[in-house]
Amino acid sequence: MLMIPSAARRSLGTAVLLSLGLLSVNARAQSPAGLPADVRATASALRAKALAGTRAYEIVRSLTVEVGPRPAGSKAYDAAVQWGLRTMKELGFRNVHSEKTTVPHWVRGEESGEIVAPYPQPVHLTALGGSIGTPAAGIAAPVIEVPSLAAVDKLAPAQVKGKIVFYNAPMRRTKDASGYRDAVPVRGGGASAAAKLGAVAVLIRSIGTDHNRTPHTGGMRYQDGVEKIPAAALSNPDADLLDAEIAAGKPVTFRLKLGAHAEPDVETANVVGEVPGRERPEEIVLLGAHLDSWDLGTGAIDDAAGIAIIMETARRLAGLPRGPRRTIRVVLYANEELGTSGARSYAAAHQDELARHVMAGESDLGSGRVWRLSSHVNPARLPVVADLAKLLGVEQGGNDAEGGSDLRPMSPGRVPVLSLSQDASEYFDYHHTANDTLDKIDPKDLDQNVAAWAAVVYAVAEMPGDLGRAPEGAGRGE
Amino acid sequence: MLMIPSAARRSLGTAVLLSLGLLSVNARAQSPAGLPADVRATASALRAKALAGTRAYEIVRSLTVEVGPRPAGSKAYDAAVQWGLRTMKELGFRNVHSEKTTVPHWVRGEESGEIVAPYPQPVHLTALGGSIGTPAAGIAAPVIEVPSLAAVDKLAPAQVKGKIVFYNAPMRRTKDASGYRDAVPVRGGGASAAAKLGAVAVLIRSIGTDHNRTPHTGGMRYQDGVEKIPAAALSNPDADLLDAEIAAGKPVTFRLKLGAHAEPDVETANVVGEVPGRERPEEIVLLGAHLDSWDLGTGAIDDAAGIAIIMETARRLAGLPRGPRRTIRVVLYANEELGTSGARSYAAAHQDELARHVMAGESDLGSGRVWRLSSHVNPARLPVVADLAKLLGVEQGGNDAEGGSDLRPMSPGRVPVLSLSQDASEYFDYHHTANDTLDKIDPKDLDQNVAAWAAVVYAVAEMPGDLGRAPEGAGRGE
Repeated sequence: MLMIPSAARRSLGTAVLLSLGLLSVNARAQSPAGLPADVRATASALRAKALAGTRAYEIVRSLTVEVGPRPAGSKAYDAAVQWGLRTMKELGFRNVHSEKTTVPHWVRGEESGEIVAPYPQPVHLTALGGSIGTPAAGIAAPVIEVPSLAAVDKLAPAQVKGKIVFYNAPMRRTKDASGYRDAVPVRGGGASAAAKLGAVAVLIRSIGTDHNRTPHTGGMRYQDGVEKIPAAALSNPDADLLDAEIAAGKPVTFRLKLGAHAEPDVETANVVGEVPGRERPEEIVLLGAHLDSWDLGTGAIDDAAGIAIIMETARRLAGLPRGPRRTIRVVLYANEELGTSGARSYAAAHQDELARHVMAGESDLGSGRVWRLSSHVNPARLPVVADLAKLLGVEQGGNDAEGGSDLRPMSPGRVPVLSLSQDASEYFDYHHTANDTLDKIDPKDLDQNVAAWAAVVYAVAEMPGDLGRAPEGAGRGE
Repeated sequence: MLMIPSAARRSLGTAVLLSLGLLSVNARAQSPAGLPADVRATASALRAKALAGTRAYEIVRSLTVEVGPRPAGSKAYDAAVQWGLRTMKELGFRNVHSEKTTVPHWVRGEESGEIVAPYPQPVHLTALGGSIGTPAAGIAAPVIEVPSLAAVDKLAPAQVKGKIVFYNAPMRRTKDASGYRDAVPVRGGGASAAAKLGAVAVLIRSIGTDHNRTPHTGGMRYQDGVEKIPAAALSNPDADLLDAEIAAGKPVTFRLKLGAHAEPDVETANVVGEVPGRERPEEIVLLGAHLDSWDLGTGAIDDAAGIAIIMETARRLAGLPRGPRRTIRVVLYANEELGTSGARSYAAAHQDELARHVMAGESDLGSGRVWRLSSHVNPARLPVVADLAKLLGVEQGGNDAEGGSDLRPMSPGRVPVLSLSQDASEYFDYHHTANDTLDKIDPKDLDQNVAAWAAVVYAVAEMPGDLGRAPEGAGRGE
């Protein structure tokens, strides 16, 4: 094997290496820049063994049954921290500890909605995370429907003033979650866009692909200097109903009552544990997922699945006869859902160490099967990524992956990212709803994820060289 | 055509007719006892035209959007009566009127449930229809789980006294609704069975095949002389959760609060309209469906679909250049869900007329496609049923059909029944839940139902002879 000292490798771009004949453009040829054969063999064996069955489902069961909903700032989240510490120790991790972070404490309270006229009907809605509440008697106002976030900007204030704006934009079902990326901006920005024109509240069609009476919550934010107005999501069938009443051509009045409010910020924690490296313990392969969930479901797909996938991945590597060269660090982040405060605290606390984070990966898209491996690494190291994709039997994606929202705060540290795209086709049927429960998970799907991560993490933790540093700038979300 | 006078036909059994050579055993041979060719031709044409598209979906849309939930005794049910009268007139029916009936007025009120110990979690539940409520503070008690209604009888009172009995029996998904028939007795009888042993409340796993956080309500009844205790259904994921907490082996405590209560009975109405017969207007082909719904959804599949199917069927027959020989009477029944009071009132008010009801049919299984034609007719007239099944391209079922719960009260009048079995595979995902909404219906499925009923009803209303009288005794429910 051609060994290039790490420092020299970092100083050489792909073009230079190619011009020197040191880098093959054909990853299939097991180029010196790709994975060594012994690492590949062990990674393949780890993968095969995990496909035959893992304990990941049992971890999801434990977190969803024994803790359940665990929103940021709640007592249940503190119970989740205790669960994380206890479970990591039970799984044999080392250096298990919590790391302080401060999170918002948003509380949903009681909520309800009804179409008052022309045809009175109760509806199912839920406040968007971070929304203010309504007065106790609720807000009753005429409704104006718009097909998109962009469309509201074309309205005159006189059309909107004193009204409830109803954003009625359906989300597309996609394997790659692009339907979500396209649909979600209205959730974050819809309230302030409407408030600028004098709206008194907003309703959005749920950002979700199902037809259940289970509305989808999710974080929203108020623009500075714009009046805050309440924001809620209607379930898809209720959005259909409101649309149908509006289509009848008579004036439509809606009443919503939201008990949502913010309580003082809460000091809580991320949970961290490690499988120490045998030769280079100071070099870290970080595996993350988020420990918090929304309040409506039991947080099975979002993100007990990810928690289980990364913990079970690390447990399997810890159990090897000869542990990997580098340290595997498992981080269970606090409060991904309402501002990634846990991830920001981690990046700040470990700033001096980020240069020694040789890779980061996150699992936060439920239990859908892995179908693509994307990256954000030194382009010279793409042959490693190609070898891994081939080993997993998945597509190789682009080299602009963000990997997950909890990894974003580490982006200035140019931490290399490997990202396993999961099949998102069904994820957004349940995401952020009461329906996010254990029964939505097939244990075999979790096993397939563990198998992929085990191979990837082992390879990166074991291979002689590393992935270099990521290109400047953050990767793209997915 | 061989004409046998009606009276003579009634006195001759199938065996006699066969021995006389008057009845072919091969329905394919267009026996004299089957459908005349001209009736078959028109019935086939009606069917083909309906398959190309009907207005049934528009009727479902109208009832679910303009009225929505319409439980017995509610003001919304009165709005549904007005909707029925108005819509029948718009569709061109004659003799449109309401007929008085008295219904119970059960009100759900606020309701909630939570597992208190060992792992506190809120759950989704809903009171069973007819249940009493709990004290305002709720009932908190230990839980004992049983796998079936039969299993509770094997327990000793000491095991049950002071506890909440949790019936955890999953329902099978079936095309013929047999899974429902097997599962539903615990809903009706579970409370009294547990109360006899000293239970303070019962929870049942929802009688439903879905995995949504939308519990299934449905009627229950208290046994005379047994103490009344509150009864609620957990959604399937919540039943899984309670089962999992119990499986942890620690004592489980549950709290439920039900605001359910009965208000005074309400006088309301069935809605009736007709397509008068051109030659024998006194002979009636009755088509029924129920106008009431549960309070949780908008009653789209249960039973706006049936309402739409029968109304659109009758509308298409009214629009023929030459209307059928006999009268088609469309009956929208009040309160099917909580005791079939509307159906009983109809049978009582029309007792003297039941002998002139030459057929009755009911549509009350959503919009699933028709796959079988069953009957409850004079066995000598089964060749007609065979001809109809062949015409529809569906299986022929037994001659013991009940046809629907609203037809049962007419059973002593030996009213012949034709029953179109619908594919029930998905029906019990939504039945009696908040999820029973318009989006669950495919317009083409409704068209297929209308096509089948139009052919059947036309044939029976037009053919020279009739179906005789039904055998003694009620048919079987399906």
